[in-house]
Amino acid sequence: MKVSKIGIVSRFDQQAALDMARKIYDEFNSKVEIFFSPKTGQHLGITENCLPVDQMQAAGVELIISVGGDGTVLRNISKMDDPIPVLGINMGTLGFLVDVPPEDAIKDIADVLKGFSYTERSRLSVHLNGQRLKDATNEIVLITARPAKILTFRIAVDDSEIEDMRADGIVVATPTGSTAYAMSAGGPIVDPRVDASIIVPIAPFKLSARPWIVPGNSTIKVEMTIPEKEAALVIDGQHSYNMVENDVVTVTRAENPARFVSSSIHGFYEKVQSKLS
Amino acid sequence: MKVSKIGIVSRFDQQAALDMARKIYDEFNSKVEIFFSPKTGQHLGITENCLPVDQMQAAGVELIISVGGDGTVLRNISKMDDPIPVLGINMGTLGFLVDVPPEDAIKDIADVLKGFSYTERSRLSVHLNGQRLKDATNEIVLITARPAKILTFRIAVDDSEIEDMRADGIVVATPTGSTAYAMSAGGPIVDPRVDASIIVPIAPFKLSARPWIVPGNSTIKVEMTIPEKEAALVIDGQHSYNMVENDVVTVTRAENPARFVSSSIHGFYEKVQSKLS
Amino acid sequence: MKVSKIGIVSRFDQQAALDMARKIYDEFNSKVEIFFSPKTGQHLGITENCLPVDQMQAAGVELIISVGGDGTVLRNISKMDDPIPVLGINMGTLGFLVDVPPEDAIKDIADVLKGFSYTERSRLSVHLNGQRLKDATNEIVLITARPAKILTFRIAVDDSEIEDMRADGIVVATPTGSTAYAMSAGGPIVDPRVDASIIVPIAPFKLSARPWIVPGNSTIKVEMTIPEKEAALVIDGQHSYNMVENDVVTVTRAENPARFVSSSIHGFYEKVQSKLS
Amino acid sequence: MKVSKIGIVSRFDQQAALDMARKIYDEFNSKVEIFFSPKTGQHLGITENCLPVDQMQAAGVELIISVGGDGTVLRNISKMDDPIPVLGINMGTLGFLVDVPPEDAIKDIADVLKGFSYTERSRLSVHLNGQRLKDATNEIVLITARPAKILTFRIAVDDSEIEDMRADGIVVATPTGSTAYAMSAGGPIVDPRVDASIIVPIAPFKLSARPWIVPGNSTIKVEMTIPEKEAALVIDGQHSYNMVENDVVTVTRAENPARFVSSSIHGFYEKVQSKLS
Repeated sequence: MKVSKIGIVSRFDQQAALDMARKIYDEFNSKVEIFFSPKTGQHLGITENCLPVDQMQAAGVELIISVGGDGTVLRNISKMDDPIPVLGINMGTLGFLVDVPPEDAIKDIADVLKGFSYTERSRLSVHLNGQRLKDATNEIVLITARPAKILTFRIAVDDSEIEDMRADGIVVATPTGSTAYAMSAGGPIVDPRVDASIIVPIAPFKLSARPWIVPGNSTIKVEMTIPEKEAALVIDGQHSYNMVENDVVTVTRAENPARFVSSSIHGFYEKVQSKLS
Repeated sequence: MKVSKIGIVSRFDQQAALDMARKIYDEFNSKVEIFFSPKTGQHLGITENCLPVDQMQAAGVELIISVGGDGTVLRNISKMDDPIPVLGINMGTLGFLVDVPPEDAIKDIADVLKGFSYTERSRLSVHLNGQRLKDATNEIVLITARPAKILTFRIAVDDSEIEDMRADGIVVATPTGSTAYAMSAGGPIVDPRVDASIIVPIAPFKLSARPWIVPGNSTIKVEMTIPEKEAALVIDGQHSYNMVENDVVTVTRAENPARFVSSSIHGFYEKVQSKLS
Repeated sequence: MKVSKIGIVSRFDQQAALDMARKIYDEFNSKVEIFFSPKTGQHLGITENCLPVDQMQAAGVELIISVGGDGTVLRNISKMDDPIPVLGINMGTLGFLVDVPPEDAIKDIADVLKGFSYTERSRLSVHLNGQRLKDATNEIVLITARPAKILTFRIAVDDSEIEDMRADGIVVATPTGSTAYAMSAGGPIVDPRVDASIIVPIAPFKLSARPWIVPGNSTIKVEMTIPEKEAALVIDGQHSYNMVENDVVTVTRAENPARFVSSSIHGFYEKVQSKLS
Repeated sequence: MKVSKIGIVSRFDQQAALDMARKIYDEFNSKVEIFFSPKTGQHLGITENCLPVDQMQAAGVELIISVGGDGTVLRNISKMDDPIPVLGINMGTLGFLVDVPPEDAIKDIADVLKGFSYTERSRLSVHLNGQRLKDATNEIVLITARPAKILTFRIAVDDSEIEDMRADGIVVATPTGSTAYAMSAGGPIVDPRVDASIIVPIAPFKLSARPWIVPGNSTIKVEMTIPEKEAALVIDGQHSYNMVENDVVTVTRAENPARFVSSSIHGFYEKVQSKLS
C-alpha cells in the first residue's frame, strides 16, 4: 500500500544527520506529506507540519524516518504508546536498529514509500512502586548511584524468587536489547523471534551469578533491599529515575511492540556477524 | 485419575538404588501392576513383568519411576519415542530431573498413584547426515575427538549462517539442559517455559564468541569444515557417535516431548537456587 | 620481640565492634600501652591516648588492631604512608583482610603481643593529572559517573598502548584486591606472592575484552578520551575523585606496602576456598 | 656479534613454507653455515648438514629459523633441553611466536645475522607420576579422554590445596601460553614479564570456578581423583600422554627457558591488539 504521510526525526547535534534529513525532505516533499518533530523542524528552519512524535499517529503518519543512530530511534519510539513503524538511517558507525547506510537512504526510502512490511519487537512495560514509566525497547538498567558501592536486589519471576543478588546493578533486556548493554554485562545473544526477557547481573559479587532467560510474558520484580543505598533506573539509556531502599521495579511485556520497517538486506544473524565479530 | 500400571527402572551399580526399587515394589505391588526394565528386574531377581522401556507404553504403563540420578532418567527417556511421564527418585547429590528425595519416595509415590499431572519439556531431534539419532532431552555436544585439537564448525540457524566457529566443541541444549553441560560451557540459565534452544561454544578461539538463544522451532545445522579432524557427537552424555569432515548435524524440535511428573514442592527457580548457589 | 604499644581502631556504626574494642582494651590495658583513633576513642568515651592513625607510627605504635571488616582495615591503612602492621578482628561475614574471628580475638591478640611476624602486600600509588592521591591496597576503580553512559579509556602499560577500551569502567587491582571488586568484574584470582597488577574492564563494549595481568612495577596510564563525559575514580571503595575528559590517571607500585600480621591458621588458598566456593 | 652457524626447520606439509626455507638457504648459504633438521632437509632434497634439532647446539648453531606457524616453533623448542634462540617466519594467519611476515624474511634475517638479542620466556617442567615429560613452552592441558565425561581434579599449589575441581579439563600455562589455549578456556592475558603460571579450568561444573594466577616458581600438583576415568595430558598441543585414576602431574618451572630472537618491530601489546581485537 502506498505511503502518503511520513515523519522525519533527526539528531540535532550532528550536521551530517540534519543534512540528510533535509535531503530526504527535498527529495520526497512533492510525493508524500512530511511531518517533522518540532526540534528537527527548528534545526532545519522548517515551521510548518511540525508535530510532536506522540501526535504523529493521530495525524495519520504511517512511517517515521529516524536519522542518526540507535539512540535516536530509541528516543523516538519511547515517546509513542503504540509506535508507528520506524526506518532508521544510520549516520554513525554502530547500530542494530538503524539498517540503512546513508548512501542508500534515498533509494531505500523510495522503495519503502511504495509499500512496506515491518517486524514487531516486544517492549517492556516498567513500573516503579506502581507508577508507570516509559516503555523500554532495549532494556532497563538498575545501577548503583554511588560508584563502586554494591547493591542488593531481590529478584522474582512470576512470584518465584530467583536470586538475592549482590551486584553493582542488573539489566532486564528484550531480545532486541540483547546485543546492546546486556551484552556488555555478559549476556547471550538472543534471536528476536524468541519470546523471552533477559536478566543479567552487572559485576555480581557472587561468582556463580549467571544470566537468566525468562518467558517474555513473565512479571519480573526487582526490589532494592539494602538500606541507605541509592540506585539509578535507566530506560534505554535515555530516561533516568532514582531508586531507594524498598523501592520495587516491576517489568512486564508492554502492550504495544516497537515496529521496525523490514530491511530487505540484512537479517539479524548477518548484523550480529558484521557488528560483533 | 488413579494409576493402575507403573514401570520401575533403577541404576544397577548402586545398591541403595536397587534397595529403593525393591522397597517401592514391596510397598505398591498389591495396589498397582508393576513392570521392570529387564536389567532392573534381573538385578532384583524378579523375572515376571519384565519389559524393555520402549515397550512399556504399549503395555499400558502410565508412569515410570526412575531410581538413580539424572543419568538414569535421561537414559530411559531416550529409549522412548513418545515418552511416558517419569518420576525421579534422587539417589545422588545433584540432579535437576530427580525431584523426590529417598526419604519421601514412598509417600510421594502413594500420592502420585492417586492421580498426577505432568509438565512437558521439549526434546531435540538430531540427524547426522540425514540419519536420525536418539532424541536429546538435555543437549547434544560436538567435541574434538583429539584432545586440544581445535575444530571449525559452520553453524546456521534456519539457513542464516550465525558463525564460523573455531572451538573445542559446541553444545546445543534445550532449556531443560541449560542447567547441565551447557552451563559448564558458559551458557545462561533458561526457564523451561521459554521456547528456545541454546547454542554454546566450548573453549572458543574467538574471544568474542557468545552463547546464542534461538527459537525452539528453528533448524540448527552444524557442519564440520576442517579436513582430517574428528569429533564426537554425544547425546545427553549417553550416546556417542563419530563425526568427520563435512559431516552435517541437523537439530530440530523433536516430535514428542519428555514428560515429568510435577513435583508439588519444588519449582524451577527453587531448584536452581538450592543446587547452583 | 614483645610488643609494648598498640593502636585500636573500630567501626563506630556497629555496637558489637565497639564492644569488642572495649573488651580488648580492658583485657590488655595493663600489659601494653593502648592508643585509639580519635573517633574510636570518642565512641568508647575514652579521652586519653587518642591519636590520629597517621601519627601512631611516630608515637611508637608497633601494631594496629582493626575491629570491623575489610573496609575498616582499608580505611586505616590508607591513612598511613608507611603502614604499621595490622591485625584484623572480623566482625562481619566476609573479609579477606580480617583473619581473626571474634571468639578468638583475646587469645590471638595475647599470642601476637608476645611477638609476631607480618606479610607485606604491595599497594598502588595513584596520580590524577600528576597529583598524588591515596595509595590503594585493593584497587582503584574508574567508573562512569552517569549510570549506563559508556566511557572510552586509552590504557597504556609502560608506554605501550594495550587497548582503547569502551566500557562502563575499569579496575586496576593488586593481587590483594583480586578477590575483591576485580573479581566481581570478572578478574582471575591472583596469589598475593605474584608480583603483578590486574587490569579488568567493567561491562566492556567489545566482546573480546579480557582481564590483563601486568608486571607489578609497571606504570599503568589510563586516559579518558571521550568529551563531555564524567567518571568517578574510587580508591579501595573509600575515597572518591572526579575525572573529566583528558584526565590521566597514573598507577605505579607504592613506595610502602601494606603489612598484615600473619595469621598462623589460614593461608590464602584456604581463605579463597572457604569464602568463594 | 656476527652469527656464523644457523639452523633451518620448516613445516613439510605446506609448499610455501618449504619454498621459503629454500629461499633463505639460497640467500644466506654463502654467508653462514646452514644446518637443516633431517625432515626439512629431506623435503628440500638437501642431504649435507642435516642434524636433529637437539644436536644443533653441540654443533655450534647459534640461531634457529623456524618457517611455519606457532606449532613449528613449539615442536622444535620442545626438542631442546636448553633451547637455542628461535626466529619465527610466519607462514600462516595467526601466531604469537612467529614475528616475521614472509615478505620481510630475507631482510630481517640479514639484520639478525649481524648480531641479535633475544628474550627469555619461562617454560614449564612436567612430571607424570615422577617421570619427566617434555617441557612446555605454552601450556599443558589435562582433558577428559571420553568427550563430555566430566573429571575431578585435586589441585595443589606449593602443597596448599586450591580446589577440588569438577571439569572437562584444566590448563596450566606460562604467560607465553596465556594468549593460546588458556585464553580459549577463559584465562586472562598475562604480560610475559610477569613471573607466574596460569591455571584455567575447562568447562568447570562449579559456576564459581575462576582462573588462578600463581607464582612462576610454585609447584603445581594435579591429581585425578575419580575412578574409572581417563584423561589425556597434552603438552603444547604436540605431545600426548594418558592419565588414569590417582595419576599425579607435577608442574614446576623448567630449568631452561625458551629464547626468542627479539623482533624490533612488534611488542607484546601490539601483537595482542592486532591478533585478538
